[in-house]
Amino acid sequence: MRWIDVRSDTVTHPTPAMRDAMARAEVGDDVYGDDPTVIELESRVAARLGKEAALFVPSGTFGNQLALFTHCRRGDEVVLGDDCHIVWHEGGAAAVIAGVNLRTLASDQGVLDPAAVAARLRCTDDIHEPKTGLVCLENAHSNGRVIPLDNMAAIAAHAHALGVPVHLDGARLFNAATALGVDAARVAAHADSVMICLSKGLAAPVGSMLAGSRDFITAARRKRKLMGGGLRQVGILAAAGLIALDSMTQRLDQDHANARRLAARLDALPGISVMRGQLDINMVWCRLAPEVDTVALMAALTAHGIRANPPEHGMMRFVTHWQITEEDVAKLATAVESGLTV
Amino acid sequence: MRWIDVRSDTVTHPTPAMRDAMARAEVGDDVYGDDPTVIELESRVAARLGKEAALFVPSGTFGNQLALFTHCRRGDEVVLGDDCHIVWHEGGAAAVIAGVNLRTLASDQGVLDPAAVAARLRCTDDIHEPKTGLVCLENAHSNGRVIPLDNMAAIAAHAHALGVPVHLDGARLFNAATALGVDAARVAAHADSVMICLSKGLAAPVGSMLAGSRDFITAARRKRKLMGGGLRQVGILAAAGLIALDSMTQRLDQDHANARRLAARLDALPGISVMRGQLDINMVWCRLAPEVDTVALMAALTAHGIRANPPEHGMMRFVTHWQITEEDVAKLATAVESGLTV
Amino acid sequence: MRWIDVRSDTVTHPTPAMRDAMARAEVGDDVYGDDPTVIELESRVAARLGKEAALFVPSGTFGNQLALFTHCRRGDEVVLGDDCHIVWHEGGAAAVIAGVNLRTLASDQGVLDPAAVAARLRCTDDIHEPKTGLVCLENAHSNGRVIPLDNMAAIAAHAHALGVPVHLDGARLFNAATALGVDAARVAAHADSVMICLSKGLAAPVGSMLAGSRDFITAARRKRKLMGGGLRQVGILAAAGLIALDSMTQRLDQDHANARRLAARLDALPGISVMRGQLDINMVWCRLAPEVDTVALMAALTAHGIRANPPEHGMMRFVTHWQITEEDVAKLATAVESGLTV
Amino acid sequence: MRWIDVRSDTVTHPTPAMRDAMARAEVGDDVYGDDPTVIELESRVAARLGKEAALFVPSGTFGNQLALFTHCRRGDEVVLGDDCHIVWHEGGAAAVIAGVNLRTLASDQGVLDPAAVAARLRCTDDIHEPKTGLVCLENAHSNGRVIPLDNMAAIAAHAHALGVPVHLDGARLFNAATALGVDAARVAAHADSVMICLSKGLAAPVGSMLAGSRDFITAARRKRKLMGGGLRQVGILAAAGLIALDSMTQRLDQDHANARRLAARLDALPGISVMRGQLDINMVWCRLAPEVDTVALMAALTAHGIRANPPEHGMMRFVTHWQITEEDVAKLATAVESGLTV
Repeated sequence: MRWIDVRSDTVTHPTPAMRDAMARAEVGDDVYGDDPTVIELESRVAARLGKEAALFVPSGTFGNQLALFTHCRRGDEVVLGDDCHIVWHEGGAAAVIAGVNLRTLASDQGVLDPAAVAARLRCTDDIHEPKTGLVCLENAHSNGRVIPLDNMAAIAAHAHALGVPVHLDGARLFNAATALGVDAARVAAHADSVMICLSKGLAAPVGSMLAGSRDFITAARRKRKLMGGGLRQVGILAAAGLIALDSMTQRLDQDHANARRLAARLDALPGISVMRGQLDINMVWCRLAPEVDTVALMAALTAHGIRANPPEHGMMRFVTHWQITEEDVAKLATAVESGLTV
Repeated sequence: MRWIDVRSDTVTHPTPAMRDAMARAEVGDDVYGDDPTVIELESRVAARLGKEAALFVPSGTFGNQLALFTHCRRGDEVVLGDDCHIVWHEGGAAAVIAGVNLRTLASDQGVLDPAAVAARLRCTDDIHEPKTGLVCLENAHSNGRVIPLDNMAAIAAHAHALGVPVHLDGARLFNAATALGVDAARVAAHADSVMICLSKGLAAPVGSMLAGSRDFITAARRKRKLMGGGLRQVGILAAAGLIALDSMTQRLDQDHANARRLAARLDALPGISVMRGQLDINMVWCRLAPEVDTVALMAALTAHGIRANPPEHGMMRFVTHWQITEEDVAKLATAVESGLTV
Repeated sequence: MRWIDVRSDTVTHPTPAMRDAMARAEVGDDVYGDDPTVIELESRVAARLGKEAALFVPSGTFGNQLALFTHCRRGDEVVLGDDCHIVWHEGGAAAVIAGVNLRTLASDQGVLDPAAVAARLRCTDDIHEPKTGLVCLENAHSNGRVIPLDNMAAIAAHAHALGVPVHLDGARLFNAATALGVDAARVAAHADSVMICLSKGLAAPVGSMLAGSRDFITAARRKRKLMGGGLRQVGILAAAGLIALDSMTQRLDQDHANARRLAARLDALPGISVMRGQLDINMVWCRLAPEVDTVALMAALTAHGIRANPPEHGMMRFVTHWQITEEDVAKLATAVESGLTV
Repeated sequence: MRWIDVRSDTVTHPTPAMRDAMARAEVGDDVYGDDPTVIELESRVAARLGKEAALFVPSGTFGNQLALFTHCRRGDEVVLGDDCHIVWHEGGAAAVIAGVNLRTLASDQGVLDPAAVAARLRCTDDIHEPKTGLVCLENAHSNGRVIPLDNMAAIAAHAHALGVPVHLDGARLFNAATALGVDAARVAAHADSVMICLSKGLAAPVGSMLAGSRDFITAARRKRKLMGGGLRQVGILAAAGLIALDSMTQRLDQDHANARRLAARLDALPGISVMRGQLDINMVWCRLAPEVDTVALMAALTAHGIRANPPEHGMMRFVTHWQITEEDVAKLATAVESGLTV
């Protein structure tokens, strides 16, 4: 039986085209700068994001932490929302690798108030204070929301006015661009560096990219080696990445449509309410009523061949991706319905 | 002319009794454990705070950072209020020395919601998450407020239920105890470690103390050496510290009374409003109306022999201490009045 | 034209069998623990190395640094030879990620004196001293030498007597085992943790493994995520790794034989002398006489279709691997001869 | 009974003049830059060492680590001798605070080979390599030897040719200057930064100084705050420091003469041999013959009112200072003699 796996878009298998490309990929030793496929990928990603240069990294966390490490000096502060991935799900790496302090701001479902960001920036000569080394944004946010471009622009303007660079955690940047109906470069435009994932909704098995100015990427390349991210015949992975970039970015609207279809079905059910404000991409976040028997719900999902993460704090998340069809969405909704009405 | 210096209680000169004690202090090499005066001070401070052991450190920042370094493992999270001294005024040290991430919570003028603290504690096996290594409280808060003991107890109960220790930044612990009318040990009771300053309102020229369990202090003593805080004939400073502990802690109510006197005077003036919720100790925080000419105000203060910090973001702070008499308070109020009515 | 690339064994392309296996690999999301191929690889590597558990990591540097980070506490000392890879070629990562101090010993071409190691171990209560957190060995050494097992045993005995663990940088562990004619587990036996590379001579495109006790690997798995090494459908790479482990480890003797053939040819040439003491595996290290025209030599190599690293400090290294045939060795020797006699 | 304490010159008590000066010292809040006595001391030390500026720090370890932190970027290498204080007795701080790697060289009793230093400097674009951030020298060396100025000059020339700064651990700089018969500034001339101790042989109770260029000291002042070294009425300690600088530096030749007297007496005894090559300052290092009963020796010393550190690895050290008279030296020699002939 095929599982319908909606735990995350990180579970996506490489497509047949990717497997074929990996098997045929031209490779070299990337530490020597010899791998033609990763060179092509880095060049194409840079162009697509409107940056001078790009660098392959093993994961999104690696790319974000490399950005912090490259932009900042030890002891600097990084200003960012208190609900973002770097704060929640990167293992406390910021203090370990870059040696920086995360300085969080309350966010309105992922959106920061530009004035509040401006008030947190610290660039004085006061010896009591660390300096702000970076502002981090996340778009699409891992809560399912797309951040408006004018919000990003306003925050970046405050940062740049003080000479503080901006990094964009774009793990799902192409989802954001798809939702906004703009080029990815538009979303990345206000950021000095941007990290994108080739895995997740784009289905490459392994790999993310960090893009920015030529000088930034040269510095990051050196620090990538220190962090253990200097790989060898990485063209194998880059071959899948090229397909992720070219083909998979074109079909994300299908995942978004499936998410909305699922949301419509779930929202009609008793005991479950969809977070409509977080329904911009391929995620459906729902709040379960306290009376829902979550054990029964999970059992029903499993019985219907659904793999989903159990609720946390009364919230449940379903994620669509290229292996979830419109029919799967219907099955999932039916399964949830059956689980709720036990 | 003698300046009336109300910038902070850090400006306090040692008292004549302290100078005399320093001149006569019996000393030894404390790195060898030979200094009788610091041994006495450490023993007396431990007893006073209800802890097993205590350690002399060069400054409050040193003591707080040593506590973080000793309690936590690298990459851990430290949960604390976003307006506390460790976040604002310790130069970003947490990520540098202890290698920990500060995880801040919005505070209500220094008071944290125990439920919100509980929600931030992370002690799971989820590999995405750092572990909470410490909760930090601050009492009296550097915003002038004393934190209720039951609030501290409630937060500590949540932390201890998960095996997370609690550190108390008690730079002005004796001010808090005085305001609350309890022993210092009562304020320190819910914390596993506590840092107090012998300088500030207690007037010693240099020095703070870190107290906790015997094992904790043994570990901290070793890390103190690494941090460059292993001093030699520190009995000179400890001699002043003993007077700070014995005598100066007894007279803080005078500073508090002077602060209230000043607040009453200032609050009656046009263009200035005292933050009544932050008037628990020896600090008077005031908001200046936008129409106040702050340059003229500062000039008037200087002309009256007053040294005060200029307003920041429309807020001004005056701090009383042993060198500020009731008469000085009257002069200060008169000076402010003259500066406001220019 | 096909290049004869003897710069390193890191340049090895994946074999056709690897490409086929990668194309067909069963995969899952390894962060969720779902990838069957990497689970099989981890299990098989652990068994092969005689350890309880193993973990896939993106690179050898990543695996070594993860070992330091997992074994040590911040500020600990790591005792190791001053000519090893961790000192020379890992970008200064030890102080950055693990926060440890490298404490180097002079080595006799890679071999450490056990008594000298013992003298460097520091496990006292003296507050002036850091504690030794780890001893690192490297076998085969990146200088081409295989370290005798009794030397490893003697060093490990000193370390273990004081409770200090031992890590083995086994980037070329299977070359060492081949040269010694023993199982890989014998070489790893005295180490508490061991890192091996699936790339290099084993030809996998990307990937290394860290092995050790179950508890150690559990801790390392969490820290791997912090370091950005939590990958997703890593079964693609693990599939190549299984072939590296099963097949490629069986043929390393051919590379060693080719290295000896090359050494014999080169040593007969004027102006070049092979370092016979570093000829244990697939590397030939040679010293060039001062009168050698290295520009002409490199030009001759290029003209013959050879890619080699230029000499450094008068030393040149040639590395054999699965893509270097006995015929290639003959061509290489001829090319060197022509370059020397220009 | 007065002990004759020859464990170290760190045990020195402040002189009566120092106690008097401390009691009368004019002070201010040095974090605000208000303390006139420390300002005077910083200015006088800078002038004496031939540097633009200087900064008071709590200890020698603090000053050395602050120098590493200020000169280097995280992950840099610091080249220094493997027998120096930073390696042996600073608790592993280098990897913790500055986040740098110590790269040690074998030393000939404290003297480094300039060519060997030059060979260790790494300033390339090779992404495998950390960069050398600093070279550290130590003079007088804590092994009792004074390093020749031309050796320092030769090493500094290599470093400066590559743009690498030089730091001098001058904990006993004035001992070196006294032994060499030159100004302290001559010893410090080749170093970009220099740390001196006011305690140790100069007898101040607490305090060291870091000197260098104005920009360097400005940066160090900020990092000193982060490290917890921003003190308040530090003029108390600076007052003793001024006497250390003015008076105590003039009398070190007496300590050196006493050390030589003691050496002459000890060297004549059976079972003990003085390390003549380490007899440049106020220290006498001796090797004890294996047959010496060290327990009896220590008992004899104690019985004669001598406090000395017990032998380590067969070596014993006696240190002279202002509280050790020529008569004390004679008593000490007599005590050793009695202990050896038990």
